[in-house]
Amino acid sequence: MADVPPSGDPVSATPYQQLEQEWKRLHAFRGALALLRWDAAVMMPKGSAEIRGEQLAALETEHHALLTAPRISRLLDRAQANIQGNNDWQVANLREMRRQRDHAIATPVSLVSRLARATSQAEVKWVEARGANDFAIFAPHLEEVLHLVRDKAQLLGQALNLAPYDALIDEFSPGITMADIDAMFKSLSRRVPTLIREAIALQAKHPSLPLTGKFPLAKQRQLVTELMKALGFSFENGRIDESEHPFTEGVPGDIRITTSYSTDDLFSGVLGALHETGHAMYDLGLPREWRGQPVGRDRGMAIEESQSLLIEMILCRSRPFVRYLQPLLVKHFGVEGPEWEVENIYAHLTRVRRGLIRVDADELTYALHIQLRYELEKKLLAGQLAVRELPAAWAEFMQDRFGVSPANHREGCLQDIHWAVGSFGYFPSYALGAAIAAQLYEKLRTDIPALDEQVARGEFGGLFAWLREHVHSLGSKVTTQELLKNATGKPLSAASALRYLEGKYLEDPAARTAAA
Amino acid sequence: MADVPPSGDPVSATPYQQLEQEWKRLHAFRGALALLRWDAAVMMPKGSAEIRGEQLAALETEHHALLTAPRISRLLDRAQANIQGNNDWQVANLREMRRQRDHAIATPVSLVSRLARATSQAEVKWVEARGANDFAIFAPHLEEVLHLVRDKAQLLGQALNLAPYDALIDEFSPGITMADIDAMFKSLSRRVPTLIREAIALQAKHPSLPLTGKFPLAKQRQLVTELMKALGFSFENGRIDESEHPFTEGVPGDIRITTSYSTDDLFSGVLGALHETGHAMYDLGLPREWRGQPVGRDRGMAIEESQSLLIEMILCRSRPFVRYLQPLLVKHFGVEGPEWEVENIYAHLTRVRRGLIRVDADELTYALHIQLRYELEKKLLAGQLAVRELPAAWAEFMQDRFGVSPANHREGCLQDIHWAVGSFGYFPSYALGAAIAAQLYEKLRTDIPALDEQVARGEFGGLFAWLREHVHSLGSKVTTQELLKNATGKPLSAASALRYLEGKYLEDPAARTAAA
Repeated sequence: MADVPPSGDPVSATPYQQLEQEWKRLHAFRGALALLRWDAAVMMPKGSAEIRGEQLAALETEHHALLTAPRISRLLDRAQANIQGNNDWQVANLREMRRQRDHAIATPVSLVSRLARATSQAEVKWVEARGANDFAIFAPHLEEVLHLVRDKAQLLGQALNLAPYDALIDEFSPGITMADIDAMFKSLSRRVPTLIREAIALQAKHPSLPLTGKFPLAKQRQLVTELMKALGFSFENGRIDESEHPFTEGVPGDIRITTSYSTDDLFSGVLGALHETGHAMYDLGLPREWRGQPVGRDRGMAIEESQSLLIEMILCRSRPFVRYLQPLLVKHFGVEGPEWEVENIYAHLTRVRRGLIRVDADELTYALHIQLRYELEKKLLAGQLAVRELPAAWAEFMQDRFGVSPANHREGCLQDIHWAVGSFGYFPSYALGAAIAAQLYEKLRTDIPALDEQVARGEFGGLFAWLREHVHSLGSKVTTQELLKNATGKPLSAASALRYLEGKYLEDPAARTAAA
Repeated sequence: MADVPPSGDPVSATPYQQLEQEWKRLHAFRGALALLRWDAAVMMPKGSAEIRGEQLAALETEHHALLTAPRISRLLDRAQANIQGNNDWQVANLREMRRQRDHAIATPVSLVSRLARATSQAEVKWVEARGANDFAIFAPHLEEVLHLVRDKAQLLGQALNLAPYDALIDEFSPGITMADIDAMFKSLSRRVPTLIREAIALQAKHPSLPLTGKFPLAKQRQLVTELMKALGFSFENGRIDESEHPFTEGVPGDIRITTSYSTDDLFSGVLGALHETGHAMYDLGLPREWRGQPVGRDRGMAIEESQSLLIEMILCRSRPFVRYLQPLLVKHFGVEGPEWEVENIYAHLTRVRRGLIRVDADELTYALHIQLRYELEKKLLAGQLAVRELPAAWAEFMQDRFGVSPANHREGCLQDIHWAVGSFGYFPSYALGAAIAAQLYEKLRTDIPALDEQVARGEFGGLFAWLREHVHSLGSKVTTQELLKNATGKPLSAASALRYLEGKYLEDPAARTAAA
């Protein structure tokens, strides 16, 4: 026999080192799961959904079993006793390992598999109900999912010593609580509704020209590739494809993003790709030496969304970026005429509308869409709102705050997939992400005075170096709140977001002309 | 809590039923592994190879651990005691479960992981050695692989009560032994070398016109899709993509095939796709009710290759098929002129050449290429040939039997990847597959007298119905030898292959003209 020792020989390894080995394996499972999901959305033949479901379930169950094995708990206790307090990263890694184990162990495998089955049925029924515009098709399945999520929230809450809804938030955005979100929405509510009115009135005085045309897919793909390369996306470690809805999957080192192109609408596919590029740049910038370890992972969905929204909403819908983009549109599509001048494109990309659809919303009305979902999901979980009352409650909120009512459920409470797949506690991440993005951006602009000039020249190195230093490279070393405090000197608040939105949407027309 | 029972509750299940559940999970792991490999060859960004390697290793190790768990052995013993002898499929399933367990348990996990590491290094060095035309770069790594494979063959042989090389063959083509292969090559050796001479002499009297041109990739893809649909490939349960070398991956219900197109050579990409379609039709035709169970799997590589070669070599290089194909070439590529007439295309597709490269070989010289590898790998394993002597031994065989010598290692002993990745005992499957294909085809022609007319009309239903009944739908219920005996009434032999080759390659020129 050859005398090469087997890999990962644990005989002489410390408990902490053994834990790192265990998580390396868990990480490999997570990577495999990510690829199976990516393939299902992008490549898989239609008839293979059931087979893929079985593969996902088998790997998820195994991952759960590995994570909740008694051996892990024993090693965590022994490692905790031995860890050297002066190695911040190892201490943080151990904390995150324990967090993952606590989450997993609090949800028994029977509940995990019930939820998996209930949500996979609910997702199918959600699609069917949308098609038939019949909420009754979906309602009993949402009831079932809600029932199971409530059980899960109870169990998680007990285990983590958190209120049930806070326990659900903790899964997506660790360290953020309902109190933080309430405070944020309270600040936003005071100003945003009037700001929307003022912005719409101001924009009505300067109507933009429509950007119509046919935009061949092949050229859109070329443009997107060029933009992604300019932003610094590594095609050596990732790729872009197409799927029904844009998403980011994979693991750092193999990031798969998608977008969804339309030949009629140039910006939906391009901005979708840029949003996901924001996620990808975060994932690709996570600390390489901690790859595969919990502390090396992203800090949750609030920070994830801050990175995608900072790129898509703040950067790409800024005047300097449009200056950089405009010649590329001319180059790729041969567009010309007054509607394709910088100011008109910028006006198009910052147009405020009281619309019914969240994913089409501008950045000013977006927070209201999230607030609706946040309020309703809290009530559903608390049993203060019955599933059958959901459509009416939805319509009432929209009428009350937007002055518009959904004409059908597709435009109403059936527009999002999140609840069907059991993602309660997820929606706030979007609003938190937007607030965090604005707070980071405010500091970033102070630290890089020449940012606008760089962006207009298509130079994004300074921007991403800042983000890498203050956000990406930290992984999960500190909490969301600490990260923000360290990066900006201030705790999480909506103040920067409000300053940013006021500055952008109440801009003095004189400034606009001067800038043009 | 909801009152849905957890899935696969084993409390009331019999040992046999519990084994089926265990194999369902193993099958899910195998499916995930297949997708990870497919993605690595077709979609994965270059920089992600290391990450993918870790994912594959983690899942393979887990698969091995699950298969060799004491629980499986206990259940196998208990099930064996209880099984009803009159349920053929269950009896066969249990036999195949035991076979898989025996193979897995004979190879300790330390050897599996050493082999994984040694072969992944050897594969890299093989690529490097090919590029540099320097066998010395590869030699020490082949030594290491050979060393480990020899250990594996010993252990497997002891456990399965087989000679070491037979134990390796058993992994790929269960039930076939060295004695079967020796007998086959003995028959072939008596006739094939003279047959090659006669065929080349005959073809020299009727030279074919070259089929040159530029064949746009998009059109080749369209043609291949049309041909695959005509053959019955289900795009609902599979897809075709492109990779450096054609292959078939995936699981029944989600089959992924690839081919490799060249704009200069129309047939390499098309025939590559048709070869893999032969594999895919087999996999898609396996018994649906046994999907996920060992008895529902393909009967090993000899039968697999028989299905691909029957399509690519026998069917697609037949005159009736070319009659069907020719108008499609006109339609897709607008080809015209005497060189694109049926007889010339047929002559092109059946041209015999004493070439150096196995994958480019015609069906007449192919067996010799395999015999070379078979003889050399047996000697390498037995220690009768040192790795350093391999290039000379290779060149000597080629000079002796083909009258040509490789000008470099790429054309010689570095042309195949098999040994680098540890696949000793695999090569004979190709020659066995060709012999089995001819034997099946002979019977198929007797059973379907109108086959040629059907094929010329592009109707392949009769052909595949026969294959489904006599081969595909049997899965692994019977041994390779039994399958062949049941399907053709005769044991495995080279007789049909020789009759087929003589009929095709010594065809009377008068018959050719009459048929045209």
